[in-house]
Amino acid sequence: MYVSHLECSKCSAAYESEQVTQLCSCGGPLLVRYDLKRVKDAFRREALSSRPPTLWRYRELLPVREQEHVVSLGEGMTPLLPLERVGARVGIPRLLMKDEGLIPTGTFKARGAALAASRAKELGVTMSAMPTNGNAGGAWAAYCARAGIKAVIVMPKGAPAINRKEVAVAGAALYLVDGLISDAGKIIARAVAEYGWFDASTLKEPYRIEGKKTMGLELAEQLGWQVPDVILYPTGGGVGIIGIYKALRELQEIGWIGDKLPRLVAVQATGCAPIVRAWSERKGESEFWEGAHTVAFGITVPKALGDFLVLEAVYATNGCGVAVTDDEILRAQQMLAGAEGVFVCPEGAATLAAAVHLAREGWITAKEQVVLLNTGTGLKYPETVSVDAPVLQPGDSLPRV
Amino acid sequence: MYVSHLECSKCSAAYESEQVTQLCSCGGPLLVRYDLKRVKDAFRREALSSRPPTLWRYRELLPVREQEHVVSLGEGMTPLLPLERVGARVGIPRLLMKDEGLIPTGTFKARGAALAASRAKELGVTMSAMPTNGNAGGAWAAYCARAGIKAVIVMPKGAPAINRKEVAVAGAALYLVDGLISDAGKIIARAVAEYGWFDASTLKEPYRIEGKKTMGLELAEQLGWQVPDVILYPTGGGVGIIGIYKALRELQEIGWIGDKLPRLVAVQATGCAPIVRAWSERKGESEFWEGAHTVAFGITVPKALGDFLVLEAVYATNGCGVAVTDDEILRAQQMLAGAEGVFVCPEGAATLAAAVHLAREGWITAKEQVVLLNTGTGLKYPETVSVDAPVLQPGDSLPRV
Repeated sequence: MYVSHLECSKCSAAYESEQVTQLCSCGGPLLVRYDLKRVKDAFRREALSSRPPTLWRYRELLPVREQEHVVSLGEGMTPLLPLERVGARVGIPRLLMKDEGLIPTGTFKARGAALAASRAKELGVTMSAMPTNGNAGGAWAAYCARAGIKAVIVMPKGAPAINRKEVAVAGAALYLVDGLISDAGKIIARAVAEYGWFDASTLKEPYRIEGKKTMGLELAEQLGWQVPDVILYPTGGGVGIIGIYKALRELQEIGWIGDKLPRLVAVQATGCAPIVRAWSERKGESEFWEGAHTVAFGITVPKALGDFLVLEAVYATNGCGVAVTDDEILRAQQMLAGAEGVFVCPEGAATLAAAVHLAREGWITAKEQVVLLNTGTGLKYPETVSVDAPVLQPGDSLPRV
Repeated sequence: MYVSHLECSKCSAAYESEQVTQLCSCGGPLLVRYDLKRVKDAFRREALSSRPPTLWRYRELLPVREQEHVVSLGEGMTPLLPLERVGARVGIPRLLMKDEGLIPTGTFKARGAALAASRAKELGVTMSAMPTNGNAGGAWAAYCARAGIKAVIVMPKGAPAINRKEVAVAGAALYLVDGLISDAGKIIARAVAEYGWFDASTLKEPYRIEGKKTMGLELAEQLGWQVPDVILYPTGGGVGIIGIYKALRELQEIGWIGDKLPRLVAVQATGCAPIVRAWSERKGESEFWEGAHTVAFGITVPKALGDFLVLEAVYATNGCGVAVTDDEILRAQQMLAGAEGVFVCPEGAATLAAAVHLAREGWITAKEQVVLLNTGTGLKYPETVSVDAPVLQPGDSLPRV
């Protein structure tokens, strides 16, 4: 294991990593730091070819000490699909999509849960709690079941129905809140303070981000250790984009990729776009978004704890923020399914809608290689698709098509 | 490409493979035959390490001629998970599960659709039709969208709601039938006869089985070119078990595995168990099961076209047939989610319920390595889980757990 310490992302205070630590005393999220010089000496790209196709292939850049503590459901190495037909249609011939639908629990949240549950198990955690918009809770419940850790989950009662099911079937204690994820977060924070539970909230422990980071590692490996020109990411809590940025910086430090970084685009819905607003005003932090609502439920996050880190990643890479409407999201979802066969979640569809805007404006050019990050499967969002199918009797005939 | 010809599984008649062919003139399903001597010379196990983790890594044992005709959504190399906690509980310490939830469209049907759509595209098909219990239709619609082939899908109106959604969003023409898959099959058969559409029904074209075969290839590779003692497979149309058997026989012929074969177990629900009944009567074919009904909707197949091939695989490997109740299925589903973190489909859960029976009877011993085949994700079956979650107001507190 090559972890050197935990470092506060706000005040740079250092913490040792072999005990359970949540936020810095200043309130800032902690980031895992590695001895990258040692990693550079010990870790060779060629070693990867003989390792299984899971995110654990990058173990030298991950924080779990003992193999026996790894809690795995086979997560990682999701496909990077060429979208030739859609790319031609929207003027981005070199369009690709990384499909996080093919991962346990059907969303990228599994990556964070796998790392956080593994590390929590390693550090002796037995009782945990998490506020969620749904998918992170589903993943946390599953990995806690696998790890043997108890979990209490609070989610908005407006979260997708399937998220309740997956939390319940995994045996976690589930509560709904008549409010938003920010309300769920406050309820969890009070319980954590009172009962001393491990707090698995976004960025309130340092390891979920290490799991999300592996999307960036995989992208680089899948592109032959080149980076694309642009990555579009649907942004709620923002840990995905923070993780990809962290991955790419670490890969630079160990010399596996060159100086070029992709321009990172934070995609939000017009119904909840605090980070896009902050970006458009060139601010370093976002403000609470009142009356948040979008069909892309997973990114209904009115104020993210890590907003400043997302904005830092966007500014540092000459990226941008783009907000798209629910109509655009649903049209993009349909286009991806009808033209490419991929049924994506609305959050993932938002990235295509944003790419269309950016290509029209000329911010993305036709020569550029562009990656859409689809964060989950559309199978968890049946309500986004309407069906009007005729019912036949057994003796009926089909019309000629 | 190493395909030599197509061979009738009933009368052994040979057909050449470079044109669209459905059933043999005798009515028997056609199987793809390879020049396995040439494969043996040309294909080395060591070549696999540098190939991407999809089913296309076995291209020498697959029927697609040109790489450009491959229609892929990144399918294959699904995880083989140890089930230590459940295994200890049910007396099978070396219990494993191959998790076909992590594949496009969330079920193993993607494998068959990927191969059939690729080959149909290669042979110039532009219009196709399929009767389905739901998941095969979802997969077929997705891969046809990716391939640019039109699809007409007929499914029972009792099929899971998500299957309608995934077919509709992919742009296929969807019809429901007030009946079973056998009724859907008759409607499709009439339309195919009248309009000349390509018939993608189970075993009415030779290539879906080649996709299912890759589960067997992957299992052998994941176990280091050893085979397990027992494989339990949920059996509806039976193509999965037929495919795995075909894979293992081909691996024997090219010398990649030894003489030992796993005992193949056909698992059905007590509400629809035609193959188990035929096995218990030592018959070579099944009879139509009247009044078929089970929560494991995907295996509600009252009479499978390939029943004789399933039974042949079971007899040849000293396997057996086991029927389990819906109650046992739902309890097994809960056990897998709560103890291992895997939310499986009821069809997959049925294999654990069957393993419990066989371990109790001593048919499976505690020393044996046993593989459950989970054919799909539980996310497509929300109705199998009930949820009773308290609703909190933002100011409420959580109880101590």
